[in-house]
Amino acid sequence: MAYKVPVRELRFVLEELAGMPALRALPGGEEIGPEVVEAILAENARLLEQAVAPLNREGDTHPPVWRDGRVQASPGFRQALRLFAEAGWQGLPHPVELGGQGLPKLMATPCMESLNSACLAFSLCPLLTDGAIEVLLTAGSAEQQQRFIPPMIAGTWTGTMNLTEPQAGSDLSLVRTRAEPQPDGSYRLFGQKIFITYGEHDMAENIVHLVLARLPDAPEGIKGLSLFVVPKFLVNEDGTLGARNDVWCASLEHKLGIKASPTAVLIYGDGKGEAGPGAVGQLVGQPNRGLEIMFIMMNAARFAVGLQGIALAERAYRQAADFARERIQSRAVEGSPGPVAIIHHPDVRRMLMTMRALTEASRAVAYVAAGAHDFARRHPDADMRARNQAFYEYMVPIVKGFSTEIAVEVASLGVQVHGGMGFIEETGAAQHYRDARILPIYEGTTAIQANDLVGRKTLRDGGALVGAIVARMRGTLAELEADAELAALRAQLAQAIDDYEAVVHFIVQHAGRQVREVFAGSVPYLMLAGLVHGGWQMARAALVCRTHIGKGIVDDFYPAKLATAQFYCAHLLPRAHALRLEILQGGASALSLPAEAF
Amino acid sequence: MAYKVPVRELRFVLEELAGMPALRALPGGEEIGPEVVEAILAENARLLEQAVAPLNREGDTHPPVWRDGRVQASPGFRQALRLFAEAGWQGLPHPVELGGQGLPKLMATPCMESLNSACLAFSLCPLLTDGAIEVLLTAGSAEQQQRFIPPMIAGTWTGTMNLTEPQAGSDLSLVRTRAEPQPDGSYRLFGQKIFITYGEHDMAENIVHLVLARLPDAPEGIKGLSLFVVPKFLVNEDGTLGARNDVWCASLEHKLGIKASPTAVLIYGDGKGEAGPGAVGQLVGQPNRGLEIMFIMMNAARFAVGLQGIALAERAYRQAADFARERIQSRAVEGSPGPVAIIHHPDVRRMLMTMRALTEASRAVAYVAAGAHDFARRHPDADMRARNQAFYEYMVPIVKGFSTEIAVEVASLGVQVHGGMGFIEETGAAQHYRDARILPIYEGTTAIQANDLVGRKTLRDGGALVGAIVARMRGTLAELEADAELAALRAQLAQAIDDYEAVVHFIVQHAGRQVREVFAGSVPYLMLAGLVHGGWQMARAALVCRTHIGKGIVDDFYPAKLATAQFYCAHLLPRAHALRLEILQGGASALSLPAEAF
Repeated sequence: MAYKVPVRELRFVLEELAGMPALRALPGGEEIGPEVVEAILAENARLLEQAVAPLNREGDTHPPVWRDGRVQASPGFRQALRLFAEAGWQGLPHPVELGGQGLPKLMATPCMESLNSACLAFSLCPLLTDGAIEVLLTAGSAEQQQRFIPPMIAGTWTGTMNLTEPQAGSDLSLVRTRAEPQPDGSYRLFGQKIFITYGEHDMAENIVHLVLARLPDAPEGIKGLSLFVVPKFLVNEDGTLGARNDVWCASLEHKLGIKASPTAVLIYGDGKGEAGPGAVGQLVGQPNRGLEIMFIMMNAARFAVGLQGIALAERAYRQAADFARERIQSRAVEGSPGPVAIIHHPDVRRMLMTMRALTEASRAVAYVAAGAHDFARRHPDADMRARNQAFYEYMVPIVKGFSTEIAVEVASLGVQVHGGMGFIEETGAAQHYRDARILPIYEGTTAIQANDLVGRKTLRDGGALVGAIVARMRGTLAELEADAELAALRAQLAQAIDDYEAVVHFIVQHAGRQVREVFAGSVPYLMLAGLVHGGWQMARAALVCRTHIGKGIVDDFYPAKLATAQFYCAHLLPRAHALRLEILQGGASALSLPAEAF
Repeated sequence: MAYKVPVRELRFVLEELAGMPALRALPGGEEIGPEVVEAILAENARLLEQAVAPLNREGDTHPPVWRDGRVQASPGFRQALRLFAEAGWQGLPHPVELGGQGLPKLMATPCMESLNSACLAFSLCPLLTDGAIEVLLTAGSAEQQQRFIPPMIAGTWTGTMNLTEPQAGSDLSLVRTRAEPQPDGSYRLFGQKIFITYGEHDMAENIVHLVLARLPDAPEGIKGLSLFVVPKFLVNEDGTLGARNDVWCASLEHKLGIKASPTAVLIYGDGKGEAGPGAVGQLVGQPNRGLEIMFIMMNAARFAVGLQGIALAERAYRQAADFARERIQSRAVEGSPGPVAIIHHPDVRRMLMTMRALTEASRAVAYVAAGAHDFARRHPDADMRARNQAFYEYMVPIVKGFSTEIAVEVASLGVQVHGGMGFIEETGAAQHYRDARILPIYEGTTAIQANDLVGRKTLRDGGALVGAIVARMRGTLAELEADAELAALRAQLAQAIDDYEAVVHFIVQHAGRQVREVFAGSVPYLMLAGLVHGGWQMARAALVCRTHIGKGIVDDFYPAKLATAQFYCAHLLPRAHALRLEILQGGASALSLPAEAF
């Protein structure tokens, strides 16, 4: 099915929920005037619908081909990357002085989301390039920034992140790749990296690898990891390409989904490079501080993967809704002269509403977080900056974990809506189900996100930040009191907020003496937090819609959003209560079976 | 990973939960003595582990090949079918006088489950053959039974069900295939059938198609469908094979999973048959009563697909647990000298317990239903027969719907436990995730099961049967009262039973005037019923284990089962409460958005 960017919905979330008007009022905000926002969204949609969306199935059925260390990308991918970068989209959030557009994260967010929807496997190439740019902006020298960033923004070079090794996945302390210092100040790297997304391909002239490795005298564990920039082709002083570096793609993985994205095994220092044995690299930042730098970048990457979840859910929803309107099957349960479109059947309706509500809620949560990211950088008031930064950091594991878990659920429902046709690959629903499954895994599994949420984001301040968030949520409850039409929604949200608070209280109380029991509830807590934040944002959306409708504004968007918010609170928020019970009564029984009894 | 049949668990469920001892005490029960049951389970496990389980990945990577209407099955499948049938497994539940073993359904159930676990795609061939045998036993003439059943039990012929057409999936009233009466009393069929599992292959000498079609004067809709038996090769009077019939495989589907199972498009009456144009068939049963016959068979088929869900969940669980014990990654959350096996991490433990508890609970529910099926046939008391039959019929949509929905969840968790390795096809976890996705769709989607559960099984007697079941559940609550160790489990189960009762009450009260709202809650009701029945059976298992442990019996199985039951009630039963809230407060909001607003 053809993909259409949901421009009206994106504009609503930006303008009415995520604070675009307030951001616009800050210094530098004139560049995101309402007409500019509309123009960017429209132009982005045009490119993605025409040039990128058709690649989705094409790439799935024609994945990249490895031959003798070279990788031929899926048909059309090289050209699409050129179109994408030449139109300026790769540089959207990056500094003007390096060739970017310097726009806020909030403006880049819908563009990234829609790119992911158009073709998830393609979008990983710009996403990883973004990550490499972020790393160099964070920790690279001015020379490194000047050398590597402009070609990446131009799309002639792409970037990668090299963290994982066979024995070191979630646990990077086990990384073994080594970097040997050279007399000229450079380093030579030796080792094997796996799961390197777009680690090798023919879509760009050069590939900029950012690699975690150990210096000879480095301590064990994560405090002995340093970061290196290792280009596929060495770069001459004038920026032209030099010798082929000693980094080679040994194979590509055969994956469940995102098949068009080449997942490479990379060998560093195989000895076949034109500049001698060992992959030549430069240190980025301080020695042994590699993981700290990666962690800074990782917040951006985790947020970006959260957006992928929303994007995939949106596309799966869109496809299922279009199918359900067209497919005629069975009479109506209340009686009908003949068979009806299946969208008329109550359970199909329930599934579509679930897909839609989860997608819209997780989008609102993510965009509000993106807005906080920008306020943390642009707001003139230091206290406001700090508060927004803390909120953003709290939200990142929720955006990553919740949006990707719901993406799997939504994609699965999408298959179910299609019935038997959903199981046939030609239909396309199955691809979303396959593609979605990586999202709760890469860039830190949901459990890794939940550890971060419990440990760094909730316990470190004894639950104070969450307490402040809960108080703001209760402010929304107070606003809802004035509107009798929203009484049921208000009661449902109030219950979910109580559930959230009770769980945070439980975590803070018990983490000291029952750390394993508390962590057994960490993913349920993350999911509960996602549900409640989603309910909060949907309630805020309902208030906005009621105001517009009350003013007599005629726009089908508002009643639809209102209905979706009401469905979300009635159907999906009750899950928060179940999660609360599971967490409060479940820790011990989750852990009582000995490992050998499984 | 090698597959091991969980023989100890199967024996526990048969003997301690599903009523095997009581069945044994009935007339004819001497053939299922304890040693016989053990021997059957052991022999079944031996065959499946050695001859069938290795086909699972082999078939996935080498799916059947279509060429010019012929289909070559996956490597090893033909030989495995021969071994399977020659050892008597195809005939296990079928009449002795037709070559079967005449064993009760309860005895056949663990054998079928394990066959499904060993290789789901392979198991569909015996499963469909079973269905064809059931249809002929139900409605075929003595001559049809004698002609077609013995070779199917012997495994030299296989069977298929031909219902679906492109415009007629869930809605069989739209079937168009036509049957033209011939002067000799036979019929000639013309039409196209799709999604025909094992519709064409080279594993057997003949294929017995059971086909829904319309006679020339048949009324519109489902009351104009007749059933025909149409063999691929016509059968001579002496049982030898005659002319190639006019039924042809036009293509195979390219599917998300169960790839080794050929899903055929069949053309009837293409004109290329050796016996002239039109596929020659015989009427089975009365004209225009085809769907009624199919419905009788469908209960068996739906139960069988429910078993597939349990089987797939079991295999996905087993694989994930084995991986989690071997994979070393990250230190323990409570601190550890070095990285530990990931099974030590609380969230991995939570995921494995969820997989295990859902699998065991749905197994217990299904086996108890199978026992009821047998009591409904073998019990000397007519009232007991009737009560067991009603219970079995109520449980069939739950076994089908719940077990297959949890299979998708369990398989998805299985991928998650594997982390990045789970997304790589070689690991095998991804195949389970792909294979599982068909289960809530074929043999009636979960919504179709839920319609049946609400309409025929709950509303028809005004909730009386469910009321009687709830009373039996409360009997278990009374038994639990005596054991303080089970107080928490008892309270959790009591709450879930209340939730179940409240929902049934709501459905009965509102179905008259708010039929669409009630049906919007039909799938949540089915899932709630599955959860509560699972909790009931796990509570019964806990009582049994406590008794054995109290007697000083040393067997690691009992404490493990007890821990799993406690986890189930603490972690999974709370979902029942969320479903209750969703159903009671959710109907209207699920339906309020107009179809064109999606």
